[in-house]
Amino acid sequence: MDYKNASLPVDKRVADLLCRMTMEEKIGQLIQPFGWKSYVKQEDGTVAITEEFMLMMEAGGIGSLYGTLRADPWTGVTLENGLSPEEGAEAVNVLQRYALEHTRLGIPILFGEECSHGHMAVGATVFPVPLLVGSAWNPELYEEMCRAVAVETRSQGGAVTYSPVLDVVRDPRWGRTEETYGEDPYLAGVLAVAAVKGLQGQSLDSVDSIAATLKHFTGYGSPEGGRNGAPAHLGLRELHETDLYPFRKAVEAGASSIMPAYNEIDGVPCTSNRYLLEDVLRQEWGFDGLVITDCGAIDMLQSGHNTAATGEEAVAAAVKAGVDMEMSGGMFRGHLAPALEQNAVAAAELDLAVSRVLTLKFRLGLFERPFADPARAKEVIGSKAHKQLARRMAEEGIILLKNNSRTLPLSKDIGSLAVIGPNAHSPYNQLGDYTSPQPEGQIVTVLEGIRRQLKPERVHYAPGCRIKDGSREGFSRALEAAAQADATVLVIGGSSARDFGGGTIDLRTGASLVTDHVWSDMDCGEGIDRSTLHLLGVQLELARELRKLGKPLIVVYINGRPVTEPWMDEQADAILEAWYPGQEGGNAIADILFGEVNPSGRLPLTLPKHVGQLPLNYNSRRTRGKRYLESDLSPQYPFGFGLSYTEFEYSGLWIEPGVIGPDEEALVHVDVSNVGSLAGAEVVQLYVSDLAASVTRPELALKGFSKIRLQPGERRTVTFPLNREHLELVGMDLRRVVEPGEFMVRVGSHSASTVSCSLTVRESGVQ
Amino acid sequence: MDYKNASLPVDKRVADLLCRMTMEEKIGQLIQPFGWKSYVKQEDGTVAITEEFMLMMEAGGIGSLYGTLRADPWTGVTLENGLSPEEGAEAVNVLQRYALEHTRLGIPILFGEECSHGHMAVGATVFPVPLLVGSAWNPELYEEMCRAVAVETRSQGGAVTYSPVLDVVRDPRWGRTEETYGEDPYLAGVLAVAAVKGLQGQSLDSVDSIAATLKHFTGYGSPEGGRNGAPAHLGLRELHETDLYPFRKAVEAGASSIMPAYNEIDGVPCTSNRYLLEDVLRQEWGFDGLVITDCGAIDMLQSGHNTAATGEEAVAAAVKAGVDMEMSGGMFRGHLAPALEQNAVAAAELDLAVSRVLTLKFRLGLFERPFADPARAKEVIGSKAHKQLARRMAEEGIILLKNNSRTLPLSKDIGSLAVIGPNAHSPYNQLGDYTSPQPEGQIVTVLEGIRRQLKPERVHYAPGCRIKDGSREGFSRALEAAAQADATVLVIGGSSARDFGGGTIDLRTGASLVTDHVWSDMDCGEGIDRSTLHLLGVQLELARELRKLGKPLIVVYINGRPVTEPWMDEQADAILEAWYPGQEGGNAIADILFGEVNPSGRLPLTLPKHVGQLPLNYNSRRTRGKRYLESDLSPQYPFGFGLSYTEFEYSGLWIEPGVIGPDEEALVHVDVSNVGSLAGAEVVQLYVSDLAASVTRPELALKGFSKIRLQPGERRTVTFPLNREHLELVGMDLRRVVEPGEFMVRVGSHSASTVSCSLTVRESGVQ
Repeated sequence: MDYKNASLPVDKRVADLLCRMTMEEKIGQLIQPFGWKSYVKQEDGTVAITEEFMLMMEAGGIGSLYGTLRADPWTGVTLENGLSPEEGAEAVNVLQRYALEHTRLGIPILFGEECSHGHMAVGATVFPVPLLVGSAWNPELYEEMCRAVAVETRSQGGAVTYSPVLDVVRDPRWGRTEETYGEDPYLAGVLAVAAVKGLQGQSLDSVDSIAATLKHFTGYGSPEGGRNGAPAHLGLRELHETDLYPFRKAVEAGASSIMPAYNEIDGVPCTSNRYLLEDVLRQEWGFDGLVITDCGAIDMLQSGHNTAATGEEAVAAAVKAGVDMEMSGGMFRGHLAPALEQNAVAAAELDLAVSRVLTLKFRLGLFERPFADPARAKEVIGSKAHKQLARRMAEEGIILLKNNSRTLPLSKDIGSLAVIGPNAHSPYNQLGDYTSPQPEGQIVTVLEGIRRQLKPERVHYAPGCRIKDGSREGFSRALEAAAQADATVLVIGGSSARDFGGGTIDLRTGASLVTDHVWSDMDCGEGIDRSTLHLLGVQLELARELRKLGKPLIVVYINGRPVTEPWMDEQADAILEAWYPGQEGGNAIADILFGEVNPSGRLPLTLPKHVGQLPLNYNSRRTRGKRYLESDLSPQYPFGFGLSYTEFEYSGLWIEPGVIGPDEEALVHVDVSNVGSLAGAEVVQLYVSDLAASVTRPELALKGFSKIRLQPGERRTVTFPLNREHLELVGMDLRRVVEPGEFMVRVGSHSASTVSCSLTVRESGVQ
Repeated sequence: MDYKNASLPVDKRVADLLCRMTMEEKIGQLIQPFGWKSYVKQEDGTVAITEEFMLMMEAGGIGSLYGTLRADPWTGVTLENGLSPEEGAEAVNVLQRYALEHTRLGIPILFGEECSHGHMAVGATVFPVPLLVGSAWNPELYEEMCRAVAVETRSQGGAVTYSPVLDVVRDPRWGRTEETYGEDPYLAGVLAVAAVKGLQGQSLDSVDSIAATLKHFTGYGSPEGGRNGAPAHLGLRELHETDLYPFRKAVEAGASSIMPAYNEIDGVPCTSNRYLLEDVLRQEWGFDGLVITDCGAIDMLQSGHNTAATGEEAVAAAVKAGVDMEMSGGMFRGHLAPALEQNAVAAAELDLAVSRVLTLKFRLGLFERPFADPARAKEVIGSKAHKQLARRMAEEGIILLKNNSRTLPLSKDIGSLAVIGPNAHSPYNQLGDYTSPQPEGQIVTVLEGIRRQLKPERVHYAPGCRIKDGSREGFSRALEAAAQADATVLVIGGSSARDFGGGTIDLRTGASLVTDHVWSDMDCGEGIDRSTLHLLGVQLELARELRKLGKPLIVVYINGRPVTEPWMDEQADAILEAWYPGQEGGNAIADILFGEVNPSGRLPLTLPKHVGQLPLNYNSRRTRGKRYLESDLSPQYPFGFGLSYTEFEYSGLWIEPGVIGPDEEALVHVDVSNVGSLAGAEVVQLYVSDLAASVTRPELALKGFSKIRLQPGERRTVTFPLNREHLELVGMDLRRVVEPGEFMVRVGSHSASTVSCSLTVRESGVQ
């Protein structure tokens, strides 16, 4: 049988297999049920296959399983009933073997897993969230991190993941802000390419590669009112310029899979948007991979978007638009056969979708090597090297927002330190959404990180309060601790931790406290959108009380979206924004507090002063307005901003040539010097302003950056190319074009601090 | 000369005149300088023509003058240097005579005036602002009001106005919210038609008609962040469905002129948007009138939008897109001739624009009757009949939001009443933006209105505080007044009053106080956008203090956009929203307070609970989301809401036939009964839900309304048609279509209180 012959080209194998398949088998390939429902863990650690799974195999098989190794409150998979790294790989093998042996054609299952910031399985490394990755401005390190994620996932048989998230976020009320790289399409594009390279490696059929799924395609980062999944109000030009950009870069980098977003754009749900999925993605960009829906997205066409009156209409709309596989699969399972009978879906359309599923499986080498290696899983999952990588990423992405009178770094000779706040020692609160339950001792909190730097008896800890509830029960103990210390580190913010059964903090002891009344800290994450950006509960009040003590007050924010608390910006002596820094976050934060690491994170989004300023993105149009009655439009902290313990100076900006043709390249050189007394890393940022164009352009658009490390006194010349990629716009006809004219080129340490020179693009053909 | 022959058709006259004109004369016709700069008032009340004006006449003349009679702080025209109704008409005649006698061809000047809510000249009637008109749901009365505005304006020679504003407002942070009919395109469409009919009358060349200019075309009601003139983020389908709808209805009603908006949509400034101005407006809708820019809009193409590198590029872009005349005219004057020389603009394009200007002048009868009638101006401007009309509109549009335990109406037997608050007796604060300086005694404030109902000695007035400043100096006097009264009417909110030189309120005496330190109350109006929707200053604090007295607290809001103060909604005994009710507002409010008038205003926009909920429109998509962490998405008061002193019941909803073809009509009948004990008016509202369609649809869309007056115990059957107009959508191809399927038809007293029945649209041709 040709399809089993690995020496034949993939398209031949697909064609051969396809013509052997029944309609039931074909439909089965387009379905992706929930994997954790296909097995039950036995007492001896092995798994038993569920009847549900066996029935599906009998009925024509399935193309894929979703989240077979996913563990979290939603799946109900816990540390107790979940699987260790080794057991997980073995379980996947049991399921795979069953599929190979109990179906007519022996088509291997594609195991799909969540890897937002690490493989979402028990024991896997929990890296910092994407918003911190966006803050690190370090694509090389991110590629390494994605490589590690791929290694962990594939070791258990996971072959495709539902990352990276490429949504360009314009409104931080949105609870999934933490899952994005921030507000800039260029930065997101660079990181998208790093993610695809890291996850997919040199070849998809390698033991350490997984297929990347780009999501959510598209406009999902601009939901109306910041409300998850709400309509995106966008014209096509903005869509191409901003939202589609990182997706295009990732497709050019070879991404294998893509997921349409839940939302609609201008009345058309992305799940049934043929313009996006066919005209743009496949025709214009040449994408030849898989399109898989988000979970329940086809149901939403019928109940939510209401663009389909029946299940058959819904599946037909999705398939005709270009959807290949349905996550969860209920609608395809129930309505695809009737839709085919009614000719609402053509046989050729079914075949095309199936061929794309099969193509990905062949490319992944699943026919040749369908099984995972449990021994390897045990070795690589949560390995020491990966922990170090998680720590390095956290170190690179934490942002120093304020540092009055060199409050930081703290001296290790400090007498004693108070560590206060609900996020100082709450492991899950520092991990972000899409996190699995964590074995004891896996997570290093800020308190623990500090205790590794400073003798424990010199560290006074008290939680003080919780994130959301109004209890001041812990204030007195916190104030007492702070009063006897030389300085206070106050760790506050928010949380995307779902209910992992850990209860809440005992405000007297700081211990985890499980009671009937669970005070969840969750204020962020998927589905948790905010209408204000204030600190919740009594956190600000606690800070005000601490301030009254007159001791140095160092605030560490751990959270998934910007905080707007002008009082804090004014009153705190130092502020670190750590987002959700992952399992090694406590070490990274402590290293920064004590100067072991010089902070080098930079904001990947604008921090506003008030929710009423939104949207407030640095790259808005020149006509965005000047002010509100209550305040101007300046942000609290601008895009690209972040302090260091040293200082950098820019000089000698120089561009050559100063005049280029539309297809030519100029080089921008700038000298950057470390004029402080510590070694440190600077993110040199290049922005372009198109002074006049046929369509409106942002006043400022990031078009290059380079993170460089300089010793005290060291100077380096940084060079950026400027070519079509950086100068083009999306014209009246929606095509990309470089238009002749003047450009202002700005280089500096953030979007509001640059030096500039000008570049002229002449008419094509003119010298 | 044919063009002077009134018996020839307009196109022949235009053609004849056009071929006699030089390029300078043609360019002149496209220019509209500021009219108030063309004359200086003499001591005897007559005017002297300025040299500037004479030079323009020598240089080829001008097409139009803007705001010749406009008086306000911006023009610098005051009660002292401005003109009385009669003098204004005479001045216009002087200018017109000069143009006729001192130019080669004697083309009359088109005088354009502002009439947002009344002719913006000294002495003219100040009607309630459009937002109140939107709240009155009474198109017949609005048509009468517009008729009165036209009569006043034309009596002074004003022949075209820059109304109505048809922007559909989605974000009340926007300072021009007061100038709109609210958030619903259907309601705006009905009122747009009333405005065109009222302003233009039976024939444009009548002595009581003026040409209507529809503005701002389009998307101007959806500025990014609610910031005036900021980009509108909209797809084309949403644009057609929402923003373009009222413009289309007004064009169908025969509107003569239209103004492109300042803003861009998806990268294309409206001023140079050929798709909007040519493809949609002229080709699809058949508009054959004039396109005039907003003031400075062509400059903005060069400096702001930056879609033009030079002045020539800017004027060429505007002309090629379909602009005919430039308000202010500086760019056309400076750059149109060079643009013609450079072939950036074709001679034929110039001629087309000129022909449209001339056509409007012929249609207005300016060649036959170029002069105004000063005697008539004196008679009609600010007439008693117009005052009464202003009062009726205010009575119809003021909304009773809350009325606990029948706090209202107040009995005239009440012992005494405290009238408190910065808006209780501040004439300009109740007029809104686009208002002229007011002669003494012209404006009836709330205090004055109440004093006409209740003996002055029983009314205790104290301003208490100002709108924006933090002084509590007036608290004690206000609390003292309230303490001795049986109830308090607290008149607070905001103001769009510019600096008319009246200074501020003396917080002790309530008198107008001019000092070096002017505390402007202005928190709304063009260019004054807000980032919160709270009451400013110490207004809420004053209310809290008053509440503590335990007396009935009746709050009257006078303001230009929604207030979000949940405390007030909870604690006030009664709340009236009066927007800016115009010069008779005090009478109307007093009539409502004492039950002389039963309130019948209904909200034309959703009142949110918090600025962080925005956008919050009743007609959003089903997928708009469910809640924020802090609150659900229910509004404070829903669209269409408003209480009455009586109660209405709905019954017997019935539709016939229940099944129709796409081109057929069904009739919806509903019985409405006044089950209370007072006569009153109900706004019966009809909403349609399209249950499934090829594109997404709002869950609820207003498609009919009828304001009916019922005696106690009276029942009436109200009938609405439902046809193509109400059932169609903007399809994938941007064409309007009625799609077969199920519709839910809802009728009730507001958007959140309806009874429903269903309607089926069958396939065309099927029985």
